[in-house]
Amino acid sequence: MASPPSSTVKPDSARLQNGASGSAERFNLDSVRESLIRQEDTIVFSLIERAKFPRNLKVYDESSREIPGFSGSLLQFFVEEAEILQSKVGRYYNPEEHPFFPENLPLSLLPPYNYEQVLHPAAASININKKIWNMYVYDLLPLFAAKGDDGNYASTMSSDLTCLQALSRRIHYGLFVAEVKYRDAPQDYGPAIRAQDRDALMKLLTFESVEEMVKRRVEKKASVFGQEVGLNDSGSDKYKIDPSVFSHLYGEWVMPLTKLVQVEYLLRRLD
Amino acid sequence: MASPPSSTVKPDSARLQNGASGSAERFNLDSVRESLIRQEDTIVFSLIERAKFPRNLKVYDESSREIPGFSGSLLQFFVEEAEILQSKVGRYYNPEEHPFFPENLPLSLLPPYNYEQVLHPAAASININKKIWNMYVYDLLPLFAAKGDDGNYASTMSSDLTCLQALSRRIHYGLFVAEVKYRDAPQDYGPAIRAQDRDALMKLLTFESVEEMVKRRVEKKASVFGQEVGLNDSGSDKYKIDPSVFSHLYGEWVMPLTKLVQVEYLLRRLD
Repeated sequence: MASPPSSTVKPDSARLQNGASGSAERFNLDSVRESLIRQEDTIVFSLIERAKFPRNLKVYDESSREIPGFSGSLLQFFVEEAEILQSKVGRYYNPEEHPFFPENLPLSLLPPYNYEQVLHPAAASININKKIWNMYVYDLLPLFAAKGDDGNYASTMSSDLTCLQALSRRIHYGLFVAEVKYRDAPQDYGPAIRAQDRDALMKLLTFESVEEMVKRRVEKKASVFGQEVGLNDSGSDKYKIDPSVFSHLYGEWVMPLTKLVQVEYLLRRLD
Repeated sequence: MASPPSSTVKPDSARLQNGASGSAERFNLDSVRESLIRQEDTIVFSLIERAKFPRNLKVYDESSREIPGFSGSLLQFFVEEAEILQSKVGRYYNPEEHPFFPENLPLSLLPPYNYEQVLHPAAASININKKIWNMYVYDLLPLFAAKGDDGNYASTMSSDLTCLQALSRRIHYGLFVAEVKYRDAPQDYGPAIRAQDRDALMKLLTFESVEEMVKRRVEKKASVFGQEVGLNDSGSDKYKIDPSVFSHLYGEWVMPLTKLVQVEYLLRRLD
């Protein structure tokens, strides 16, 4: 047996993942930015994995009545049940996580984990997962999933759940983005918050050149992570998903919805 | 609003994913090979995603008694419950899927999907997930997950489930590998099967140069998919997981366990 590779552990630190769970001094513009960048990789991976399966439209049919006693789509059934399980093991203690079906979630069977609380309590009232669900199912999936049905409904839905949770986490991370921006310049945001001026807040939060850069970066990531890698080539131009899907996703949905979350949060930041 | 990207759909076809579910004429050495290659990407992605979290050892402690009324680790509880849900929506109709906790799985609430049956019925009796579980938890995780505990147990376990299922699918895909090899050359395998000669079968299934090539390919994939991609560089040499972990994983565990599955299957192929 070969011995295990020696210098193996170069993982992401918890810091990159958890702006929220780190100590207060680790919550700053840099840590928030690092988390946003790392979450791009997760979103790219998760959609590429979903693209292994065709549309499997049966999964999304809200009038299907496939599950005895449940009215809704197969995916609604699956995500609701999966969230119940994940809630039992404490997923929603983490302020970065937002359930799609928050009604009637069971309490965790585990003791609470002491996540650093950096957000204003108003954050708890913000959940735009309905919008995210509809965007994913009706707008995004048709852009990259091939037509067809291969019967792999359970695997398709596991994959959908991963995509939905990655998008939800990224978009609701707007809460942390807004908090860190506010702390950085309360004098800039204060007047617009007190005036409850959405448009002014949106303007303060919009940096077109940064948004363009993010779109280009996710497109580049998609071209790197979505290529077919063989031993004898130096990168192919065959992609598992057209990289432009990702700049479209970010430009049309991820960044606008993140800003919506930021505005909603800031409007309540001084309550 | 920008219009959606036009030529978006270049996903993997169902064929790449499902040697098993395709029509009989699509089940051949090429389709099996394509599936094995695509599954490498899935394994690389899933481990990279797990590396976002530190070890979180609490999850694997079999004496923890964290869940009232359940004796076993948190991960055992989580995977068992997740498999119950996935079984309800038909995951185990697919002959590529093998549960970690096959005892007491509920029947699917969905009608059976008509997967092409290409395997000998003996395949149903082969499940080496206990070995795969132990390899993953005790051998593989320590090679790439950073020391520490960040409290993200639910997300960690979701990620573990994805890794375990990807490894299980890949290793049990040995059933299809063995079947296609047998059909290709029954005259080569027949005598060893009738003699129930494990060593002879193992020799017939072993191609060291191919195995070396696979190890190099997964290592290359890990270096491409695990790099940090920014706009201004042409690939960095900082990796989310040391790529040598993947050649080690394949050389020490994935390929040997796949061959074990192949031998077990072939021994019963003429029953």
